[in-house]
Amino acid sequence: MSDESIAEAPLRRPTIADVARRAKTSRGTVSFVINDRPGVAPATRQRVLDAMKELGWRPNQLARSLSTQRAYAIGFILARDPRALSSDPFFAPFIAGMESRLDEVGQFLMLRFVADTDSERAAYADLATQRRVDGFVLSDLREDDPRIELLSSLQTNAVTLNVTDKTTTFPAVSRSDEPGVADAVNHLVTLGHTKIAYVSGPGRYLHAIRRRATWQSALAAHGISAGHSIQSDFTAAGGSSATAALLDLPADERPTAIVYANDLMAAAGMSYAISKGVRVPDELSIVGYDDFELSAYLSPSLTTVRTDPMAWGVAAVDQLLRIIDGRETTNIALPPPVLVERGSTGPAPRP
Amino acid sequence: MSDESIAEAPLRRPTIADVARRAKTSRGTVSFVINDRPGVAPATRQRVLDAMKELGWRPNQLARSLSTQRAYAIGFILARDPRALSSDPFFAPFIAGMESRLDEVGQFLMLRFVADTDSERAAYADLATQRRVDGFVLSDLREDDPRIELLSSLQTNAVTLNVTDKTTTFPAVSRSDEPGVADAVNHLVTLGHTKIAYVSGPGRYLHAIRRRATWQSALAAHGISAGHSIQSDFTAAGGSSATAALLDLPADERPTAIVYANDLMAAAGMSYAISKGVRVPDELSIVGYDDFELSAYLSPSLTTVRTDPMAWGVAAVDQLLRIIDGRETTNIALPPPVLVERGSTGPAPRP
Repeated sequence: MSDESIAEAPLRRPTIADVARRAKTSRGTVSFVINDRPGVAPATRQRVLDAMKELGWRPNQLARSLSTQRAYAIGFILARDPRALSSDPFFAPFIAGMESRLDEVGQFLMLRFVADTDSERAAYADLATQRRVDGFVLSDLREDDPRIELLSSLQTNAVTLNVTDKTTTFPAVSRSDEPGVADAVNHLVTLGHTKIAYVSGPGRYLHAIRRRATWQSALAAHGISAGHSIQSDFTAAGGSSATAALLDLPADERPTAIVYANDLMAAAGMSYAISKGVRVPDELSIVGYDDFELSAYLSPSLTTVRTDPMAWGVAAVDQLLRIIDGRETTNIALPPPVLVERGSTGPAPRP
Repeated sequence: MSDESIAEAPLRRPTIADVARRAKTSRGTVSFVINDRPGVAPATRQRVLDAMKELGWRPNQLARSLSTQRAYAIGFILARDPRALSSDPFFAPFIAGMESRLDEVGQFLMLRFVADTDSERAAYADLATQRRVDGFVLSDLREDDPRIELLSSLQTNAVTLNVTDKTTTFPAVSRSDEPGVADAVNHLVTLGHTKIAYVSGPGRYLHAIRRRATWQSALAAHGISAGHSIQSDFTAAGGSSATAALLDLPADERPTAIVYANDLMAAAGMSYAISKGVRVPDELSIVGYDDFELSAYLSPSLTTVRTDPMAWGVAAVDQLLRIIDGRETTNIALPPPVLVERGSTGPAPRP
């Protein structure tokens, strides 16, 4: 195809040659500018940036990849049922946060849900060895997580969500959930509750274990022994059946307050209690975790811990991009989640 | 690094050579088997598959890419605020469906939210020209959608969600939402309701306009004139305030039933009504749209239209993979959404 026929094609996009011509410089200099290499005079650099803007030209990712060996994409691999994207209120806003930061720099997210650890290992290895991504965000850290060694051996970049229990060079982007859970327990104790139950997420996740431990130690700090605790699964069905089990306890053991590990279980649990004639909060106080969109609009509105996963997603990608660029990085700690007091908690009923 | 040092490395994975040795054949034959090429004897093929399984070996994506010129990834680019991933109940389960099908075949999803049409165009062009994906799923079809020509000119593969208004070689994977909305209206009319209001989504989406029109024509089919209709925004806050406005109407105009364009608005609206002492369903029937996870666990449980976006995501990827494989494809129409009758709808109150 000749240059003329390209010029006539309706879909012709400006090329690097057009930018060079308009900026009165060479293609090589334009390439230096877009790859942030030193040695370009500030005035020339500005002319190139102006020309790019005027022509609406964006660096072609292929050219950038060839010249910099970068993929301009990051990987996010989840060893979960893909349904978690809807049922766990963390992932959708967290991914939204990652995407909002990635669009600012014109990069992509490689997303994958894997069914088993073999697929997980293969997915990380495929993306890293082929350089289809420049690094990974690691969530759902496990005890003695094998992904830390895997990614080190693959010589790729990564950030972890929260600090791992292993020695690693990968920085963490952390948000401590302990203060939020402790605030929830303190709030209930202040209201006179002493029988405070806990409905947790699956025990294989560090954050689920940690939040449950916080509930227990916050109670202990008040000299209150831990009440009943049920390991559930973050789903509405799980929250409903855990609540049924707690309300079926003998009267002297039955909790007057329940803390749930997420809002979905809390909302389902609250609805179950109401459907059985239990008055919330007069007879039973309910606390969630997440502050998902519906929580403020339930009846009664849900007392919960606001976590803002979207901001976490932005921060995780931001930190990963800094690592990929080779800029110095350290662990980052985001402000802790805050308790949002609403209508589902009230004074403990008189015995 | 010598073969010996590789053999001693703790992370050594089996190689194609190991598979060939175990299957007593050549590497080339193993490569033929994994790329589904003809000319391999059935017995040999079975030995290779057995050896792969015994060794826990999976085809390395790089090798596959080099031999087949495939990316083993598909693209999904949304010209939306990334927050739609949480606030619009379609995307999370739809992506979950795509992911569940992709994991079965060991492939990835390239996900991107773009802020404007320039970024959108660049994103499609970058992924297609660099062959970083093998094709795209196109959602949120617009009138005279420019992406159809763009993707044709890029010579890539695609499927559209619902049928476009343009001539195209890209097959559609469609789901009609009219029957679900009509069933909801018929259900309410059968229960004796004549004052049936509608709370819609934003008017800029084709599907929002279509569902509202279906509500109106379904009422007309029963000789009932359209009741009050409020244009809202798919959010919990919007559902709550629309419900407040409808319940503030003079007694003779106030609806005895409200149909909402999604479950989030319906759940918030139902909670608002209950908080104002309105009994659901005795005084007010409520119908949602989506059947999101919490709907069955609300009190009362929510009558809604089950759309199953996850199944749509599975079908879209399935169809796209068929196109990429060069197998013959046509438009696919999925079964329409179905009405799920639960506790939030009941007989119309006596005047």
